[in-house]
Amino acid sequence: MTRQPSPASSADRLALLRQELQRRNLNGFVIPRADQHQGEYVPPSAQRLGWLTGFTGSAGAAVVLEKQAAVFVDGRYTLQVRNEVDTTLFTPQHLIDHPPQRWLGEVLGKGDRLGFDPWLHTWDQVQILTGACERVGASLVPCADNPLDCVWTDRPEPPASPLTAHSEDFAGRSVADKRQDIAAQLKADRLDAAILSAPESVAWLLNIRAGDVAFTPLPLCFAILHADSSVDLFMAEHRIAGAIRAAWGESVRVEDPDRFEAALRHLGRGARRVRLDSASAPFQVWETLRAAGAQVEAGADPCALPRACKNSVEMAGTRAAHHRDGVAMARFLAWLEEATRGGTVDEMAAAHALEAFRSRGLHFRGLSFPTISGAGANGAIVHYHSTPKTNRPLRPGELYLVDSGAQYLDGTTDITRTVLIGEQPPAEARRHFTLVLKGHIALARAVFPSGTTGSQLDVLARQPLWSAGLDYDHGTGHGVGSFLSVHEGPQRISKVGNTVALKPGMILSVEPGYYKTGAYGIRIENLVLVRPLTPPEGAERELLGFETLTLAPIDRALVAPQMLDAAERDWLNAYHARVRGEIMPLLTEPAERDWLERATAPL
Amino acid sequence: MTRQPSPASSADRLALLRQELQRRNLNGFVIPRADQHQGEYVPPSAQRLGWLTGFTGSAGAAVVLEKQAAVFVDGRYTLQVRNEVDTTLFTPQHLIDHPPQRWLGEVLGKGDRLGFDPWLHTWDQVQILTGACERVGASLVPCADNPLDCVWTDRPEPPASPLTAHSEDFAGRSVADKRQDIAAQLKADRLDAAILSAPESVAWLLNIRAGDVAFTPLPLCFAILHADSSVDLFMAEHRIAGAIRAAWGESVRVEDPDRFEAALRHLGRGARRVRLDSASAPFQVWETLRAAGAQVEAGADPCALPRACKNSVEMAGTRAAHHRDGVAMARFLAWLEEATRGGTVDEMAAAHALEAFRSRGLHFRGLSFPTISGAGANGAIVHYHSTPKTNRPLRPGELYLVDSGAQYLDGTTDITRTVLIGEQPPAEARRHFTLVLKGHIALARAVFPSGTTGSQLDVLARQPLWSAGLDYDHGTGHGVGSFLSVHEGPQRISKVGNTVALKPGMILSVEPGYYKTGAYGIRIENLVLVRPLTPPEGAERELLGFETLTLAPIDRALVAPQMLDAAERDWLNAYHARVRGEIMPLLTEPAERDWLERATAPL
Repeated sequence: MTRQPSPASSADRLALLRQELQRRNLNGFVIPRADQHQGEYVPPSAQRLGWLTGFTGSAGAAVVLEKQAAVFVDGRYTLQVRNEVDTTLFTPQHLIDHPPQRWLGEVLGKGDRLGFDPWLHTWDQVQILTGACERVGASLVPCADNPLDCVWTDRPEPPASPLTAHSEDFAGRSVADKRQDIAAQLKADRLDAAILSAPESVAWLLNIRAGDVAFTPLPLCFAILHADSSVDLFMAEHRIAGAIRAAWGESVRVEDPDRFEAALRHLGRGARRVRLDSASAPFQVWETLRAAGAQVEAGADPCALPRACKNSVEMAGTRAAHHRDGVAMARFLAWLEEATRGGTVDEMAAAHALEAFRSRGLHFRGLSFPTISGAGANGAIVHYHSTPKTNRPLRPGELYLVDSGAQYLDGTTDITRTVLIGEQPPAEARRHFTLVLKGHIALARAVFPSGTTGSQLDVLARQPLWSAGLDYDHGTGHGVGSFLSVHEGPQRISKVGNTVALKPGMILSVEPGYYKTGAYGIRIENLVLVRPLTPPEGAERELLGFETLTLAPIDRALVAPQMLDAAERDWLNAYHARVRGEIMPLLTEPAERDWLERATAPL
Repeated sequence: MTRQPSPASSADRLALLRQELQRRNLNGFVIPRADQHQGEYVPPSAQRLGWLTGFTGSAGAAVVLEKQAAVFVDGRYTLQVRNEVDTTLFTPQHLIDHPPQRWLGEVLGKGDRLGFDPWLHTWDQVQILTGACERVGASLVPCADNPLDCVWTDRPEPPASPLTAHSEDFAGRSVADKRQDIAAQLKADRLDAAILSAPESVAWLLNIRAGDVAFTPLPLCFAILHADSSVDLFMAEHRIAGAIRAAWGESVRVEDPDRFEAALRHLGRGARRVRLDSASAPFQVWETLRAAGAQVEAGADPCALPRACKNSVEMAGTRAAHHRDGVAMARFLAWLEEATRGGTVDEMAAAHALEAFRSRGLHFRGLSFPTISGAGANGAIVHYHSTPKTNRPLRPGELYLVDSGAQYLDGTTDITRTVLIGEQPPAEARRHFTLVLKGHIALARAVFPSGTTGSQLDVLARQPLWSAGLDYDHGTGHGVGSFLSVHEGPQRISKVGNTVALKPGMILSVEPGYYKTGAYGIRIENLVLVRPLTPPEGAERELLGFETLTLAPIDRALVAPQMLDAAERDWLNAYHARVRGEIMPLLTEPAERDWLERATAPL
C-alpha cells in the first residue's frame, strides 16, 4: 500500500488539521507530546507534536484553535522551541507558568467544543482540561479517532519489534512466580484485575524485552493481570517467537491489540474491581471500564514496587554491569586526558569515544539515554544535547561534564563525571565542585530507618550548596531499572514530596549539581543500591543505607581538600581505593593503569 | 426551659440512639470526634463521641450498627480507651490500621443504609465512607438533623462567649487592610467568594477573639468573604459589642448563624465561583453550594498563609511574649531544682507552679494547651496528661519532661524542657539527650533557599538519632498563631509531605525527642521565627534561616560535651549567653539569678 505523503510545512499541516476539525464541528484540539503509555520515549508513529509543530523536545503540548494555536514548552526548551517551530503559526507558551488549561481559559469562548484524543491523556490530565472548559462554558470532546492522524497520511506504522526473552539468569525470577505474587497482592486488595498500562511493567512481569523505542528495551503494549494470576497480553502474534509462548504456557493469553477495548468491556460487564495505574492509564481505559460497569480503583501499578526492589540475581547483575561500565569510564577518562592535550577533541567526538569503549563490554545492548557531553558553558545547560551547531572543543582550563549510561543484559547504568581539561580550573570551579561533592557524600553516607522516603533525604545533598546561597533546579535521584528504563519509579529523591519508602534492593541515582550559566556545569552522579545495615548497639529501628554501585574516579583536581571534613575525606579516599581495587585488575593497558593509579590516589 | 436529663450509662444512650436510627430506617450511624470546624478543641455541645462512648481523647470516631458498635482510636489512646469505654458495647479498633471505612467493609451488608451528619465530616472524609459503602452495596445517607442530638436531651447549648476586639496594637493590621488584601487575592484567582470555615481565619481577618473553646481564643463561627472585600459573619448579634461593629463599619455584615445555608444557596443561584477550604469545610457546605449551582473550587483557606506570616507588630509581640515566658520558665526551673531536693513535688504540683509563674506575666490570658508534665516513665508517653491516678513525684535520678505554653495578648508560646532531677541521670540518658540536642541544633541552624518546605528540613532534626538506630514518632514542628491556635497551619516540619514553602514571619516549633518506654522521655522544643538572611558572597538564591524565640536554658547536666562538634558547642553556648543576657535583667530574686547564671554557663 502506498500512502500519500503529507505536506512538508507546518503551515500546510496545520491548515489540513483545521479543515478536519471544522468537518467535525470542533473549535479546537489538544496535541500532547505523549503516546498511549505516557512514556519517556515516543515512537515515530506517535510523534504527533513533532509532525505538526516541528518541536522535538521531551515534554510539551500544542493546542490548535480556529484562529490561533499555541505550543507549550518548559524552561529547558524556551530557546529550542524558537529554532524548531514557526512561531507565527504557534505562539510559544510556558508549559508550567502558563499551561494549556490557563491559556484555554483566556481564549476559549462559551459553547466552544475542544477535542482531545482519550488515549493520549491520563484521567487527571482530562480533569484539568475539563475544568478549564467548564469555567468558560466550553465543552471537552473525546475524539474516538484522532483528527490529526486523519490528516497525517504518511504516519509511520506503530513499532512492532520482535520480543526477546529476558533470561531468568538475568531476571532472577520466573514469570509464573511473578504472576502469582502480584496476583496474590491483587486478591489481598480484593481486586479482580489490574490493567498494566506501563510497558515497563509488562516487560518485567513477562520477562520480555523489545526495541519499540530508543534507549529502553520496551515492547509498547497493554496487558491485564487477573487475580487468578493469568495474563492477557495485547500484542500482535507475529512479534512473539514460539519458544517464548511455550515458556509462558497457557496462563499468558496473547490477544490482538484491537481486542483490548473489548476485554475492558468484558471486565466491566462482570462488574469487576479493577486497579488502574493513575500515572499511565489512558482516559479511554477509565471510561471504557466505567461505562461497562467496572468498579475502577485508581492506585499504583502493582508491578512498580516489586520491579523496583531488585532480587539477588538482579543485584549481582547490576554490580557486574557496573564493573564493566567502570572499566569503560576509566579507559575513556584516561584517553580523554591524553587526547585533550592537543585541544582537538570536541563534545561529539568525546561522546562517540565513550560509547565505543562501552560497546566492547560483555552484554552491552546500547546506551540507556542520549549522552550529555557538555564542554565549558554547554555543561551548564542541564539537558544539553550536542549538535553539529553547538558542538565545541574541550579546551584546557574548562570543565567538561559527561552524563551517560548503558544498557547491559544484566543491568542499566547512569553516571555523570565532571572533569577539568588541562590543569588550571576556572575561577571558583574548585569551590563549587567541592560543595557538590560534599552534598553527594552526605547523601551517599546517609543512614535512615525503614519507612524513610527519598524526599526526606533530598536536603542532605543540597545543604552544602544552600549554605553558599546556591542550589540546582533538578531532582537529586531517580530509580533505575534492570535492563529496563534508566528513569524508573516509584521511588525518587527530590524536593517534591514522594510517599514511597526506600526499600532494600532499590537502585537510585545520587546526582547533585551546580550550573554557572555561561561558564560551566558540575554534576557528580553515582548509582546506589539500598541495603539493610547492621544495627548499632541499642538500635530500636531497622536501618538502611546505600551501597555505591558506580565505580569511576571523581576528579581530584577539582576538589579543594581544605573544604572537606575528616569523614568526607575518608569517604572519598575509601571510594577511590575501592575503584582502584575493583577496576585495576580489569585494565591491561599500562597507560590506563597509570592513569587509574593517579586518579585514585588518596587526598 | 427545663430539659430532660439523658441517661447516665453508655448502654442506655446507645439503646436510645439505636431506637432513633431504627425509626429513621437507618442501619447505622457514624459519630466522629469533630465539630463543624474540624478544630482541635471541641466545645461540650459537640462532644458527641464522649457523650455516647465516654472516650475523651483528642481524635477518634465511633460507628453504631444495629447489632454491634466500634470505637476507633489511634496508638496514643489504646490504653485509655479501655479505661473510659465499655468495650462490651463498643469494640475498640485502631483508627489508622483498621479505620472505619475498612471495618464497615467487613460488617455492612448489601442494601444497608449508613447515616452521617454532613456538618461533621469534610468532603474527603465523605468520599472515603461512600467508597466503603459502595463496595458492599450499601448506601451512605446524610442526616439533616443529627439522630444522636435527638436523643441527647440535655446537650449543652453551643458556646456563645462575647467577642473581644484584638487591638491593632497586637494585630498590626486593620480589618479593612486584611479584607482588601485577601479579596484582591480572590479576584486574582477569579473567585467571587471564599467560605471561611476555620474559626482561626475569621478571628484573624476580623481582629476578634473569644472564649468558645479551651486554650485557643476562638469564636466558633462561619463567614463568607466576597471579592468586593465585604464579609458576612454568621454569629448571634448579642455576642458582638457595639464598639466592635462600629469599628468594622458596613463592610462586615452580621447575620444569624441560621442564615448560613441560605447565604450559600444565594451564592449558588448566582453561579458564583467559590473557594472552599478542603481541610475544614463541612460536606454540607459543598453540597449546598453545588446543588444551588455554584462553581466550587477546593483549595487553601485564603487567610491561612497571610495569617501564618506574622507582620512586624506581631513579630515584636511574640518576642516580648517570649521574654515574659522565659522569665516564668527561669523562675519555675530555679524553683524546681530547689523544691525537688526533698522529693515532694509531683507532676501536677509542678504544672500548677509553672502556670502560677506564667500567670504573673503581663498580657497573660491562660495556657495555650494542657501542660504535659511527665516524670520518669510518664515522660515517655508522648501525649501524657497527669491525673490523680497517674501523678508521680519527681524523684532524684529521673528525668522530668514539661511541655507547656501560654496565650499572651501579644503572642502564643510553646516550650518543652527535659531536666534531670537530682544529680545522677539514668543510664544512657545523657547520650540520648545529646542526640536529641544535636538534631535540635542542626535544624535551628539550618540555612535554606526561599521555596523550601518544612518537610524538606525534617531530616536534619532526626539524623543524629537515626545514626544510632533511634527516632521519634511525631512531627518535628508545627506552626504557631499570634494569640491564636498553638497548632496552626499551613506550614509544618514533618516526615509527611507538605508543599507550603517557609516564608519570613512564620513561627514554627522545633521539637525533636526520644522516648524510652518505661524509663524516660526527652524533648527539646523551642519556637523559631523564619527570617531572611544576609546572603553570603556569590549567593544566587535568597536565603532564609531561623531566629530562636524561646529563651530558657537547656539542661547542661544532660549534655555529653564530647558528643558535640565545635559548631554545636558554639551554638549552645551562644544560645545560653543570649538567654542570660535577655532574661537576667528581668529577674530580681538572688536565688533565681544564681540559678540562671549556673544554668547558662558555657560548656
